[in-house]
Amino acid sequence: MKKIYFKDLDKHFNKKVVLDGFVEKVRDLQYVQFLVLRDSTEKVQVTIEKNDENKELNEIVSGITAESTVKVEGKLLENEKVKLNGMEIIPTSIIVTSKSNEDLPINYKDPASAGIDTRLNYRFLDLRNEKNLLMFKVQTCLINEMRQFVVNNNFIEIHTPKIISAASESGAEVFELKYFDRNAYLAQSPQFYKQMAMCSGFEKVFEVAPAFRAEKSNSYRHATDFTSFDLEISYLENIEELMDFEENLLIAGLTKVKKEYGEDIKRLFNIDVVVPTKPFPRIKLEELYNILEEKFGFKMDYEDVGDMNSESEKLASEYIKEKYGHEFVFITDFSVKKRPFYHKRENGVPQGADLIWKGCEITTLSLREHRYDILCEQAKEKGIGQDAKFYLEFFKYGCPPHGGFAIGVDRITMLLLETGSLKETMFLFRGPNRLEP
Amino acid sequence: MKKIYFKDLDKHFNKKVVLDGFVEKVRDLQYVQFLVLRDSTEKVQVTIEKNDENKELNEIVSGITAESTVKVEGKLLENEKVKLNGMEIIPTSIIVTSKSNEDLPINYKDPASAGIDTRLNYRFLDLRNEKNLLMFKVQTCLINEMRQFVVNNNFIEIHTPKIISAASESGAEVFELKYFDRNAYLAQSPQFYKQMAMCSGFEKVFEVAPAFRAEKSNSYRHATDFTSFDLEISYLENIEELMDFEENLLIAGLTKVKKEYGEDIKRLFNIDVVVPTKPFPRIKLEELYNILEEKFGFKMDYEDVGDMNSESEKLASEYIKEKYGHEFVFITDFSVKKRPFYHKRENGVPQGADLIWKGCEITTLSLREHRYDILCEQAKEKGIGQDAKFYLEFFKYGCPPHGGFAIGVDRITMLLLETGSLKETMFLFRGPNRLEP
Repeated sequence: MKKIYFKDLDKHFNKKVVLDGFVEKVRDLQYVQFLVLRDSTEKVQVTIEKNDENKELNEIVSGITAESTVKVEGKLLENEKVKLNGMEIIPTSIIVTSKSNEDLPINYKDPASAGIDTRLNYRFLDLRNEKNLLMFKVQTCLINEMRQFVVNNNFIEIHTPKIISAASESGAEVFELKYFDRNAYLAQSPQFYKQMAMCSGFEKVFEVAPAFRAEKSNSYRHATDFTSFDLEISYLENIEELMDFEENLLIAGLTKVKKEYGEDIKRLFNIDVVVPTKPFPRIKLEELYNILEEKFGFKMDYEDVGDMNSESEKLASEYIKEKYGHEFVFITDFSVKKRPFYHKRENGVPQGADLIWKGCEITTLSLREHRYDILCEQAKEKGIGQDAKFYLEFFKYGCPPHGGFAIGVDRITMLLLETGSLKETMFLFRGPNRLEP
Repeated sequence: MKKIYFKDLDKHFNKKVVLDGFVEKVRDLQYVQFLVLRDSTEKVQVTIEKNDENKELNEIVSGITAESTVKVEGKLLENEKVKLNGMEIIPTSIIVTSKSNEDLPINYKDPASAGIDTRLNYRFLDLRNEKNLLMFKVQTCLINEMRQFVVNNNFIEIHTPKIISAASESGAEVFELKYFDRNAYLAQSPQFYKQMAMCSGFEKVFEVAPAFRAEKSNSYRHATDFTSFDLEISYLENIEELMDFEENLLIAGLTKVKKEYGEDIKRLFNIDVVVPTKPFPRIKLEELYNILEEKFGFKMDYEDVGDMNSESEKLASEYIKEKYGHEFVFITDFSVKKRPFYHKRENGVPQGADLIWKGCEITTLSLREHRYDILCEQAKEKGIGQDAKFYLEFFKYGCPPHGGFAIGVDRITMLLLETGSLKETMFLFRGPNRLEP
């Protein structure tokens, strides 16, 4: 843990240092040898003159292949002539700690040189690309800040089971597994269980965990095994409170990202991180339909009416961006037909909203129906049977009014950095045709 | 989100307040009615005199069942005669926000009144017990502090896939599922993937996520679906560094827990949270065997030699507690036979340790073999075949020396609060005979 990060080297001029890193480049010239080392923070040059005194070092360097890892001991000097940050290491010892094969199967420095599927086959090399490293630093920062926001607001963290005895929401698109001598399923979301925590009086809970969907979709924004940031809050009065909370949560996360990584993101992704202003624009679904038709000549397919689809999400963002200069928009007043049975209704209108960011839905939020009798009725009306029985039980012995939402962790990372696809964004993407490595 | 927490009520004396909570108790006497309300932080008394003016309120209160939820508006008064914190609400309005059935299937206030399996059937009520609520607050605090510790040490958070194409470590005890038109497995640990991140140059990574083991064990410390706090660190020189890091991590977490919840834990669990001193005692396995035989007449079964089992873990803690007054002990120098192929060896000794806390193993840590050729040899020697091929690939193109460990989140919570079983500790336990609710 005593590792010196290369970005901090300017505190060590004229001192002996020990550096660990990958070999980015080897240049073996007539009178001098250069290594460029890389760690997770910066690069640095190692300079070795060719002479009798350095004979041993010269031989070691001649045998080093790029992408090997080394431990270099030496003196760090300022040298204006060195293009790389004006410094160099004059080594007294070089140890090759691991040796790379000479030929890499992909050129990770140039993603365009291979198709995405080839790159995913060698994701362990593809992730060496500096944009990918930055992406995971940014995601760590964003999610951690959001997590601190909820912890500081007295949320309790829960870890709900991922192996369940009944499909959690619909029954379709669920993975089935053998559980000793019976069948079980993988949880599509912690929905029922985070609501259970409300019935248990936990008041506010969150979970960041995998969710599983057996969708045979090859869209840019679906994966079979992804990470969901879920939360649930008791004693809400209305969905305004919930939308307000999500705004604050995202603003906290994006403010931190902009501060810590705004410049790096601009440099490597050419994207300006925008911290959104409050309140985010809100628009009712029917009003939106009218606008999209008037403005873009767009009409929803009949079977989609009362809902959004990927095209209307894209156009909605385009319209909102133009009209309000805002990247986010809440769409409210969906059709009862298109919302799950547990959404609370008022005058027949589901008390919920979808949040769209840069043309893509990132959240469905809603108040939940917490009254046992009405909830049973709504389940019956939607044809929800035996599978939800254990869930309905939760509401028999008192349950606070509550609501909540989930945010797709991979999806907001994709949208933040505009990578265009979850395949580019996930540590290891999983889809119908992708289960490796 | 404007909810007033009952623990903060003393800031609201003589003011109008609106309170949301569960009804803990209803007392309907001849001249007066009392409600005791409860939220996630405290209890408070509501007092309603029976008179003409209060007629409407009196009727509402007469109809309230315990465990219902209510919204009470009224004035908060100091009253020394009230045993419950010397305060009471004189209400102007009471709304029943959800009504509980009169008869609860278990008495959650008295866990001894029902067997653990009955309580688990009604876990949503069992969790209303104040010890259980505290348990999850403590777990949230502990894990969040540990997470902040690694984030502040520049760790990157990864989310590795839980659906995999090959069994991650052994092949035994793995859940199989149908993945479209092929078979897949649930990850037993993120071991191979967090090591992949080392090969990708991420340097330090962590993940808090579910892990799955198809073990048909009914022991107090095993579950089929549990939460693991995993991490992996590059450029380690030796296992001392790794043990030192784990010590710091646990000390950070336990210091925070003691500060925030030490008194509550003492009051409800009668346990003193001990922040351990550094370094934790270390002992070589063979030396430990000798001591356990001398001291307790304990001999390992022949097939277990070179390893620990639950009995030797218990006795080791007993011995260390007596000798050093310490709750933790690292056992080192296990047999190569008993450690996985990817553990690094030095002079034939696996460079790893088990950490035992209060008689139960909570971590196996080790340096990993990062050199492709030696790793392949060790895999071959252990008869690891095709399943590890994708993993071995990771090491062909340079990989820093590294090591890491995992801590069972449920297990350390169980040991911290001495609940005696994961069934008591997990939000929803999963075992061979338990898949509900």
